[in-house]
Parts: sequence; structure tokens; C-alpha cells
Amino acid sequence: MSNRILFDPEITRVAHLLADTAREVILPYFRTAELTADNKLAQGFDPVTEADRAAERAMCEILARERPKDAVLGEEFGARSGTSGLTWVLDPIDGTRGFVSGTPTWGVLIALSDEKGPFYGLIDQPYIGERFEGGPDGAAMRGPRGGSALRTRATKALSDAVLFTTFPEVGSAEEGRAFRAVADGARMVRYGMDCYAYALLAAGHVDLVIEAGLAPHDIQAPIAVIEAAGGIVTDWQGGPAHRGGRVIAAANATLHAAALEILRRH
Amino acid sequence: MSNRILFDPEITRVAHLLADTAREVILPYFRTAELTADNKLAQGFDPVTEADRAAERAMCEILARERPKDAVLGEEFGARSGTSGLTWVLDPIDGTRGFVSGTPTWGVLIALSDEKGPFYGLIDQPYIGERFEGGPDGAAMRGPRGGSALRTRATKALSDAVLFTTFPEVGSAEEGRAFRAVADGARMVRYGMDCYAYALLAAGHVDLVIEAGLAPHDIQAPIAVIEAAGGIVTDWQGGPAHRGGRVIAAANATLHAAALEILRRH
Repeated sequence: MSNRILFDPEITRVAHLLADTAREVILPYFRTAELTADNKLAQGFDPVTEADRAAERAMCEILARERPKDAVLGEEFGARSGTSGLTWVLDPIDGTRGFVSGTPTWGVLIALSDEKGPFYGLIDQPYIGERFEGGPDGAAMRGPRGGSALRTRATKALSDAVLFTTFPEVGSAEEGRAFRAVADGARMVRYGMDCYAYALLAAGHVDLVIEAGLAPHDIQAPIAVIEAAGGIVTDWQGGPAHRGGRVIAAANATLHAAALEILRRH
Repeated sequence: MSNRILFDPEITRVAHLLADTAREVILPYFRTAELTADNKLAQGFDPVTEADRAAERAMCEILARERPKDAVLGEEFGARSGTSGLTWVLDPIDGTRGFVSGTPTWGVLIALSDEKGPFYGLIDQPYIGERFEGGPDGAAMRGPRGGSALRTRATKALSDAVLFTTFPEVGSAEEGRAFRAVADGARMVRYGMDCYAYALLAAGHVDLVIEAGLAPHDIQAPIAVIEAAGGIVTDWQGGPAHRGGRVIAAANATLHAAALEILRRH
């Protein structure tokens, strides 16, 4: 983190403006009968809501006005190039399946990246009113019961670790086998938390999150928040995870190494 | 519902007093490093927290004072007999595994039962500040974004239904097979929501919840809330579910029959 660009408080201001706007745009669609869910992928169930699109449009308008030199990579409307070397990576509703079934585990993901990857991230849960944020200056959360600094756990042994993932099948059959090999060694495995699992890891409540088939916009904000809270996020080979795919997030280096060793073997 | 005793507004007052007290007692333990989790069952992982015990103690004190003639059936401290024919069924923290991993999907469950089963229920999520309630007068919720009446969905076909359960394995191997037979026919399956899944069903966001191995205190409040919202809760044979065990909750009779037929076959 120390090699990153000097952190700009203007970035925090814009990021919170984006997140506040996304909340305002999305919440009227949440838990309404009018909610529409298109099928984005023919082979799977990946609903895209009007809320998703409206929120990304609103965030892009803010960035065009407030940060005209930065690039934007969005989930819905693709990429806009820039000249500053910085890219805002936006996922207006991460966890659309959770969203359409009313669970409070979806989130707005906002990251800012340079050529090395994300160095600032924000995970917002609009319904609960909870925001997790991490960058070069540290990591913190604010929610309905107050706020606190974010710090990952010190759990060293896999046998003491709490592991989260969203779907029990975890990607392909091969990826599922690798996941289950880690899960078999963990103290507890839980499912269905969408991006909220990464926030819980940053906050020191869980120890591992393992997923596959992620897009860059799914993981860049979690990477920045978790790293700022003391955790580690890589792909299943130990390399950078910010381009998505297979991702392992861990509370600390010891636990990361233990789980990674099992993933690599499978 | 029409054959039940005339509903007493005093019951609502006491139930909300219990839920308010449980919130106050439990929240200081939530997401703290000091949280202790004993192993209640030798063969499984079923943590009981100090919070669980302290909240049940506080609720029992209120009931001894406010409702001395009613019986009490609690998760932690067992049963107290009464003379009124009514029993308060308490689960201070349903979803203790969710609780210890910081998820906002555990809840305080409070039900009031007569000899036929529960006729009033309350599901409270203290961290979000959300309360779902159902009884002879109807069903409603109040949360951080306001309140509304609860009404289950009209989804008729299993192929359109959203199905929830907490753990993908769903009890024994045989129970797991029966669950997966229903899941294979559903539009979407989601995991890990604990008692929050029943609240989402009552609120019309999901269509089915199927679980096994439940205790009476796990299901009595959900039964009352869901039935008051227009849904149906039975065991896997179509009989009463308030003694726990294998439970299916459905948004309506048509969908219930379709899912039950598959469960019975397996």
C-alpha cells in the first residue's frame, strides 16, 4: 500500500457521492413487485434490474462531471477511457439474485484502480445503511449501530477458520472439488452472502471467502477494502485477483497460504 | 385463523416488550471479539452465546411478571408450566452460526401457542432493526426504510419459484435427496439466510423454504407470521409443523402441493 500514489481526499468525497446516489436510485426498486429481472446470460440466471442500470447511469454522470479525466469500467455499460491513469470500477448491484429475493446481502461496489490494481474500495449495503471502505489511509465501516475501524482476524489454522462462498457448487465441477477440499478442513462453511461476505472478512468476523467466475467489477472493491484491513486477496495460484476469475480472500498470510496450498493441489 | 381465540392487544404489547428487551441485551454481543461460542451438541457445530442465554433470561423475567399464568418454552432453559393454556415459545438467537459470523440473518423468534399450535409470531432482526409480525389481525413488518403489510406471493409453478434453505446438505442424506429433487425443479435456490428466509417468504420476496431437523422454537414464530400473511407451513407429509422436524413453508396452497408431492415421493 505504501508504494501507491499519495491518497487524495477528493477521491473519498466522490466515492461517497457515488455511493449515496446509488443508494437513492436503487432503494425504491428493492423489494417492490414491479422489480423486473431480465436474463443477461442465456445459460444462467443473472437478472439485471432497472435499478442496476439506473444507478450506473447516475454514477457515470457524476464521474463525467467530477472526474472527467478518469476512466470508468462499469458492469452494465462497459468502459469509458480516460487520461489520468485512474479507473473507477463500478458494480451498482453486486448480488442481483440476492437483490431480487429481498436479502440484505447485495451491495454497491466502487473501486478506484491504477495500473497495479485497486487501491481504494467501498462496499455499500443500502437497505441496512452500512458502508465499508478501505484505502491507503486504512479501513473503516459505518452502519446502523455506529462505526469502527476494520481489521481482519488472526486465525492461523484452517481448522479454526470460517469460510464463506455464495453458491455451494462454486463454478465448474473442478472448481467445486477444489473448494470442497478447503471446506472439508474448515471449522464452518456458510453460503449466500454475496459481496457482504467480503465486508465481513474485512471486519474480522469471518476468515476466508473463496469464489470462482468473478468479473473485475465483482472483486476490485473487496480487494481494496480487505487489503486495507490487513487481509490478502489473490487468484487460486497466488497471483493478482483484480481481473476476476477464481478468487481467494483470507484474513492473513498464514491462513491464505494454508488454503491456497489445498486449492493448488486440486 | 378464524377459530382462534379472540386476539388480545395485550399480547402484542408483551411480545414487543420481549423483542425490544432481547434486542437491547443481544446487540452489545454482536460482532464483538469477546463473543464466546460453546459447543451445545457434541456431533455438530451449534454455538450458544452468552447473548442467547442473557436474552432468554431477560424475556423469562418479563413473562413471569407480565404473564404469570402462561407457560414458557425456551431454547436455552427449557419449559415452565402455566395455567392459561397459552405457551410463549422463545428462541433468543435463531441462527447462531450466522450470529457468530456477523451476518444480519439471525433473529429473535417469539411465538404464542395454544393447544392447536402457534397463532401469533414475531421475527426480529436486531442489527438491521427490522421486525416481522403476524397474528389473527394480519401480518406486517417495520424496518429501516418504513413498514408495510405482509402478503405472500401468488407464484403457482415450481419452475417459477425461488427456494431457500440454510445449509445445502439439508439434514440427513435422505432428506438432502428429497430437498434436491424440489430444488432441481425450482427457478432459483439460495442458501444461508437462517430464519430471515421465513420473513422474506411472508413478505412476498421468495416462494418456498424447506428445512429439516428443526426444533419447535425454530419454527413456531415463522408459522404464525407466514400463515397470517397468506402462506402455508407443514411438515414434509402435509401435517402440522409446529413440533419441528422437517418443514416446508410455501407462499400459497398450489405451490405447496406441487413441492410436497415431490418431497413425499423421495
